[in-house]
Amino acid sequence: MEVGEEWIVDAFGCEPHLLRDASCLQSIVKSILRDTSLHSLHEGYWHTFAGEGGVTGLVALQESHLAVHTYPEYRIATFSLYCCRIGCGWSWDEKLKKALGATTVTIVRVERGRLPATTSSNGMPTKMEHSREG
Amino acid sequence: MEVGEEWIVDAFGCEPHLLRDASCLQSIVKSILRDTSLHSLHEGYWHTFAGEGGVTGLVALQESHLAVHTYPEYRIATFSLYCCRIGCGWSWDEKLKKALGATTVTIVRVERGRLPATTSSNGMPTKMEHSREG
Repeated sequence: MEVGEEWIVDAFGCEPHLLRDASCLQSIVKSILRDTSLHSLHEGYWHTFAGEGGVTGLVALQESHLAVHTYPEYRIATFSLYCCRIGCGWSWDEKLKKALGATTVTIVRVERGRLPATTSSNGMPTKMEHSREG
Repeated sequence: MEVGEEWIVDAFGCEPHLLRDASCLQSIVKSILRDTSLHSLHEGYWHTFAGEGGVTGLVALQESHLAVHTYPEYRIATFSLYCCRIGCGWSWDEKLKKALGATTVTIVRVERGRLPATTSSNGMPTKMEHSREG
């Protein structure tokens, strides 16, 4: 049993000007929530860093949260979608290539609140499902 | 090269009444930020779910974000600390056992914005460092 899943998504090779455009990122967040039938609890907290800096966006959901951070200097955008139900998958690869010009998207799924079966005190990796589509 | 690290921490066996106590969780968040020298950009967004529900807290940081979600019905608290610098470790096991009565704490560290070395389109797990302390 787990209490939810977290999708850890990193997009590489994005267009830098889009990573400084909060409205572009807000539009992506809206698409994610619409397509996955998730519900925001508020407008979200958005912060655009000064100068050549990127954008941070945090949205609390009825079903947990969605976070985005961008790094225009590295052409990277990272997303974390934490969902307290199973099956919140989204077409990250296709959609982020289209919306941000990403060339490579990595996706990691981590089960949250799942106690490892082992009783050892040694490290045991949490089950992960990972795909890299470039 | 990576743009940051995400600490994925799940605490099991917590005292249910503490998982419904936003002020207790806010105090933990303050301790984390103080001890790791991270800086919040705002007061944070906090939501206490109705009835026997838990609490969601999201805090945007100068260095990315910290999120907490609790599940009193399962005696579970989950934390995600995303930090755009390396070395944001905290004494999760010791501190969450003391603050929430947790019996087991699992910790996963995920590097964010690190392109896998492989050029294959097949899945390659992101490097993880995991410890389970029960």
